[in-house]
Amino acid sequence: MKEQGALDELTAQGLGKIEWAERHLPLLRRLREQFESAKPFANLTIGMCIHIEPKTAVFCKALQAGGAELALTGSPGTTQNDVVAALRGSGVSVYGQREDDHAAHVDNLRGVHSHRPHLLMDNGADLVFTLLEAASESRVIGGTEETTTGANRLREELSGGLPFPVIVINDSPLKLIMENEHGVGPTIVEGFMRATNLLVPARPFVVFGYGSVGRGIAKCLRAMGARVIVVEPDSIRALEAALDGMQVSEIEQALRTGEVFITATGRPGIIVGQHFDRLPDGAILMNAGHFSWEIDLPALRQKSASVDRFSELIEVFTQLDGRRITLLAQGEMLNLAGGGGNPVETMDLGLALQAQSLRYIAEHHNELAREAQPVPREINLEVARSMVKLLSRS
Amino acid sequence: MKEQGALDELTAQGLGKIEWAERHLPLLRRLREQFESAKPFANLTIGMCIHIEPKTAVFCKALQAGGAELALTGSPGTTQNDVVAALRGSGVSVYGQREDDHAAHVDNLRGVHSHRPHLLMDNGADLVFTLLEAASESRVIGGTEETTTGANRLREELSGGLPFPVIVINDSPLKLIMENEHGVGPTIVEGFMRATNLLVPARPFVVFGYGSVGRGIAKCLRAMGARVIVVEPDSIRALEAALDGMQVSEIEQALRTGEVFITATGRPGIIVGQHFDRLPDGAILMNAGHFSWEIDLPALRQKSASVDRFSELIEVFTQLDGRRITLLAQGEMLNLAGGGGNPVETMDLGLALQAQSLRYIAEHHNELAREAQPVPREINLEVARSMVKLLSRS
Amino acid sequence: MKEQGALDELTAQGLGKIEWAERHLPLLRRLREQFESAKPFANLTIGMCIHIEPKTAVFCKALQAGGAELALTGSPGTTQNDVVAALRGSGVSVYGQREDDHAAHVDNLRGVHSHRPHLLMDNGADLVFTLLEAASESRVIGGTEETTTGANRLREELSGGLPFPVIVINDSPLKLIMENEHGVGPTIVEGFMRATNLLVPARPFVVFGYGSVGRGIAKCLRAMGARVIVVEPDSIRALEAALDGMQVSEIEQALRTGEVFITATGRPGIIVGQHFDRLPDGAILMNAGHFSWEIDLPALRQKSASVDRFSELIEVFTQLDGRRITLLAQGEMLNLAGGGGNPVETMDLGLALQAQSLRYIAEHHNELAREAQPVPREINLEVARSMVKLLSRS
Amino acid sequence: MKEQGALDELTAQGLGKIEWAERHLPLLRRLREQFESAKPFANLTIGMCIHIEPKTAVFCKALQAGGAELALTGSPGTTQNDVVAALRGSGVSVYGQREDDHAAHVDNLRGVHSHRPHLLMDNGADLVFTLLEAASESRVIGGTEETTTGANRLREELSGGLPFPVIVINDSPLKLIMENEHGVGPTIVEGFMRATNLLVPARPFVVFGYGSVGRGIAKCLRAMGARVIVVEPDSIRALEAALDGMQVSEIEQALRTGEVFITATGRPGIIVGQHFDRLPDGAILMNAGHFSWEIDLPALRQKSASVDRFSELIEVFTQLDGRRITLLAQGEMLNLAGGGGNPVETMDLGLALQAQSLRYIAEHHNELAREAQPVPREINLEVARSMVKLLSRS
Repeated sequence: MKEQGALDELTAQGLGKIEWAERHLPLLRRLREQFESAKPFANLTIGMCIHIEPKTAVFCKALQAGGAELALTGSPGTTQNDVVAALRGSGVSVYGQREDDHAAHVDNLRGVHSHRPHLLMDNGADLVFTLLEAASESRVIGGTEETTTGANRLREELSGGLPFPVIVINDSPLKLIMENEHGVGPTIVEGFMRATNLLVPARPFVVFGYGSVGRGIAKCLRAMGARVIVVEPDSIRALEAALDGMQVSEIEQALRTGEVFITATGRPGIIVGQHFDRLPDGAILMNAGHFSWEIDLPALRQKSASVDRFSELIEVFTQLDGRRITLLAQGEMLNLAGGGGNPVETMDLGLALQAQSLRYIAEHHNELAREAQPVPREINLEVARSMVKLLSRS
Repeated sequence: MKEQGALDELTAQGLGKIEWAERHLPLLRRLREQFESAKPFANLTIGMCIHIEPKTAVFCKALQAGGAELALTGSPGTTQNDVVAALRGSGVSVYGQREDDHAAHVDNLRGVHSHRPHLLMDNGADLVFTLLEAASESRVIGGTEETTTGANRLREELSGGLPFPVIVINDSPLKLIMENEHGVGPTIVEGFMRATNLLVPARPFVVFGYGSVGRGIAKCLRAMGARVIVVEPDSIRALEAALDGMQVSEIEQALRTGEVFITATGRPGIIVGQHFDRLPDGAILMNAGHFSWEIDLPALRQKSASVDRFSELIEVFTQLDGRRITLLAQGEMLNLAGGGGNPVETMDLGLALQAQSLRYIAEHHNELAREAQPVPREINLEVARSMVKLLSRS
Repeated sequence: MKEQGALDELTAQGLGKIEWAERHLPLLRRLREQFESAKPFANLTIGMCIHIEPKTAVFCKALQAGGAELALTGSPGTTQNDVVAALRGSGVSVYGQREDDHAAHVDNLRGVHSHRPHLLMDNGADLVFTLLEAASESRVIGGTEETTTGANRLREELSGGLPFPVIVINDSPLKLIMENEHGVGPTIVEGFMRATNLLVPARPFVVFGYGSVGRGIAKCLRAMGARVIVVEPDSIRALEAALDGMQVSEIEQALRTGEVFITATGRPGIIVGQHFDRLPDGAILMNAGHFSWEIDLPALRQKSASVDRFSELIEVFTQLDGRRITLLAQGEMLNLAGGGGNPVETMDLGLALQAQSLRYIAEHHNELAREAQPVPREINLEVARSMVKLLSRS
Repeated sequence: MKEQGALDELTAQGLGKIEWAERHLPLLRRLREQFESAKPFANLTIGMCIHIEPKTAVFCKALQAGGAELALTGSPGTTQNDVVAALRGSGVSVYGQREDDHAAHVDNLRGVHSHRPHLLMDNGADLVFTLLEAASESRVIGGTEETTTGANRLREELSGGLPFPVIVINDSPLKLIMENEHGVGPTIVEGFMRATNLLVPARPFVVFGYGSVGRGIAKCLRAMGARVIVVEPDSIRALEAALDGMQVSEIEQALRTGEVFITATGRPGIIVGQHFDRLPDGAILMNAGHFSWEIDLPALRQKSASVDRFSELIEVFTQLDGRRITLLAQGEMLNLAGGGGNPVETMDLGLALQAQSLRYIAEHHNELAREAQPVPREINLEVARSMVKLLSRS
């Protein structure tokens, strides 16, 4: 156990980061004022699973201002311990720390449910599945789901079986535009530069997936002078990529011509099995999707003669034939692991959508279908209007 | 009347342009071969309203190979007389010439209907409305509509009253991506350069509308170093514009800071009335939408002390207070008037969608709802796949 | 011979184009006012060789305002006959017309010298070499040379033998930046679109030379989504190209992977001999350098089984093995032949440099070395300052 | 004093970073092999002042392979202590640590001179001025200077008084292109993202200076969708900026319209005195020039009512009127302080130029003028050729 002094320092550091973030979250600041008088969450407990970093702490304060009790956990590997310390100091029940492994994460999810929440703010559908597996009585009236990955799980694995309405935040066109394309995209490129210190111009990158995240990455790379190859089975998206100046390739061809490989599909099993055998010496693998399942890490590990760790973010897997394959951030989202995460303003937008959607669920849960559903259009238009005003400095 | 020699020269010139176009329309060439054996249009007459230029002539040959009889008219101001001459020589009944005014256009539409077509390939819903106004018996089993403008008319003015199915080509995501954004966008910029010989970098342009056409124009301008201001009332699109690096303004502010003003909304009455009084001296107006109604030309004319014509594409309207306002191409789509129109490949895609959709109507008209409807997804995917293959040179 | 009516119409058309150009040449307008009072060219005759189009006509008026007598010829293939008609009407002695061949051009140069000019404004060093070959007495006290090509000829072929000072305009950093990179570059791309109506995005272009013209073309193409391959033997320039996101290749490799080939080196013999045998079917050749010598046209013609002309700008050379090679604008600079030439503002800058340099020669010719020399720095700074002010709309 | 265990861990961490860097420094690896057999530095001691990070450690190994003894110091604030530990373990005499202030730096420079070096590898001319101020006997036969700032000092303050030849590395066109524009530029932008977590698109940035560093920053920002305002008194560079799509402003105007202010001029006193009074609330200041003198920090401190530190890189200076001004990295180069520094490949190029230039001085010092001079052209061409080959993966 750490000493008191160190803990205080940690809390102070967390509070400093939160104060800095708050200055740059004007949409949330305004919502907090509105919630303070309207108290839309009076007598409600919200169970949350969300990357724990300074911006989510500001979000928690807005919900608390609206009357909510909060129980929170993060994702393994991205939790910032100083923010955890600061949150605990302000009355949030937090489960988890940066060092957690998967087993600890499962315990944390159960910890959140021990508060018997009325609303769920979920990430990857972890809270929903933990709840359903427990099969015990619940007070949940509805919730939100942050990611496309989670939405896919709800729709595919639970089709018809969801006992309450869930608004899927990532389906909002605003999120696709601002957070995925203009938030994740550039910060993934920033993460590559930060982690490797390698040059972007003239380097051949392969981007898997040309959804909004993949497009954001590919466009940022190309704008900086890189050579970008896109692998995308949907022919309509592939057409977009080609017209945006990307080279569209089949995966076999891409494995031969690329050097840096970035997965951004939101689906498991993109780089697997024999793919590892065809990667060139010096290949660099990284992931931009929500889960670390896009690159088959167990297979990579099994195929390797040795693994060397060069920094917190860099591991080199030497293959039996001598080829060295570099993995960044252990396959976790590179912009979150070790970086600041998405830009403050994209988070401001995403969290404003979250907050408005949670309020909407609290007020309208009886009228909504018990299924995963998009953010209501009036919320989208209103949040977009606020953000345009902000960005135009008008 | 022109002499025989001149006409023959005209036909030869038209045939040369058509042959050149055909080389660069590989999707249509392949469809022509398929139609030649399948004869999907045997015993059918197709009434067509489409800009008459070399690429549409290649399209006509594909339909004829499929067994169709064709009756065709264009849009006033964009018809290429040499292509008309060549088409007539190959058995198409063509109505219209470049010099036509609106009254002549109405006559041309009636001329097409005099052939009692089974299928309509429409542009701006001109053929459909001419048909419905005539209120006489018709053999039409269905059709296609090229433009968003036309689709809006069908949906808004005819809601419920359309007596046959119409597939709206411009609703296809392929068209939005390839023709509108990457086709119209850059050729409008090319048209500005061609017509005015002015520098694009550092110049302040105002683009009205950030749909796919407006976005294509704005991105091309910005990529070339221009300063781009976007006027867009839909806050979600405005957010996209801001994040793409455009300055988003209200119209009042934009009129003060811009120099070149480009309408790309597909709606009438964008620059009107008092707007003209606020334009700076030297302002240049141009249109990228289907109809010339986005700029209120009668009002502009009425407010002007004098009008000077400097070239086929440039008119200067001197205002009572001495300010000079330049209008390009009389408010017609600048890339069509006096230019080559959309790039061959975007037309290849659009015409492949048209041809496949006309065949779909011929074969499935009984199963389809009597309303405006999108291109079937299987057609979109197949045409996209062919185009990606082509663009990847793979 | 044409009838009077046609000539008058031609003159009127020329005058209209000149008036439009003059509105957009504010630097020249201001110089004209200064020259009108200072009369720096009183009693001097200026012999000029310059592409004859509306902007050069405005330049002529400024020199005339300064007291000069003018004798002028153009370059074969780029002369605009309507501008010639207008210039003749305003007292300039003009030699040449659009239809001239090389022999006629030589006669035209001699025609200019028959006026016994004091100052030469040269283009490709044609006037200087014609003068030296004539070996007769001359009144020339100095001159300017527009192009790098001409400057190379003066320095390499005449080393030491130039009997008067010549200021090389194209050596000015302003010209490299504004006219070559931002003027020629984008208008060459515009010329490709105008001449061929082909799509730029996703298309593989090979640019020969990464000087300021080549860089301008390559950057404009890449910004529009093309795939750009650069062939450049100077390793420092090649490094720039690679870092700007271009693929740098040896010529042999480039011939295999490209589709459109653009020469921009300013040197003869870039695409020659066996290169033609390796071009793919459908290859398109075009030139952006001053002379049409970069592509070996006689060799291409000799290797071809037949030549078809599809438009004023498009010829297709069918090879013995069936491959078809398209040549645009007969290898002349594509932005001048059939297009408006460089943007008005880049011409304004270039002509302001010309005018100030001619005045400098008139006033300081005795103090200057008898050799090709750069534009004096004080002229560069002053012209740049005026242009920045203009572009900033401040 | 730290314990042994901590030191060993520090050394191990440093060695890991050096090994990773070495993999991506192929030019240096090849030079090391060449030096190993040629021993160009046998019996020579090299005194060095250079940012101490992993890449410079690889450089040291190449010089040692060539026979050199090394004495080294860094710049205050950018020294990486783990690399220092690793270097000491391999026989380099290192002076300095991250925590040094200016006084300590002066001591470190004297420490380097205590080894009586024959060659100087200098940075900001610190070693040369320390040597000349000491006025004691010296064995120096020549040296290299890394920065433009240092070269300016040598030329302006010592004009005529330099007792040995110094090759200025930063004058090499290769450095301007690759390290300044494509290395410093993007990593400064990366540093802004890393330090602030703020969005780049739509944000108004002011860049002071449009030399190669300023241009690199401005282009990277604009490519990512930012609004970029450039302040540049040299009218030729300002013209470049305007044509590259930047808004060119006088400083007074820029202070009003910007939000983030980046100095990149290489000169002292760019943001000073009353400028601080006109900055908007929320303004962010950062520096990309070699020295932290571009922003007048003492004046800023003196004008502030309070200073808060939010993270290692963020301080907020609250003004008497309540406006808050954020300073990043205490005005040090943002890409070095807290980040990985320039991309590995740009360092590979710069260090290859350094190594070849030091060898050139060792072999040719008697033939060279005793003044600051550019890198010999043959070295530039050779290093460029190697780098193009590398970047083209050919």
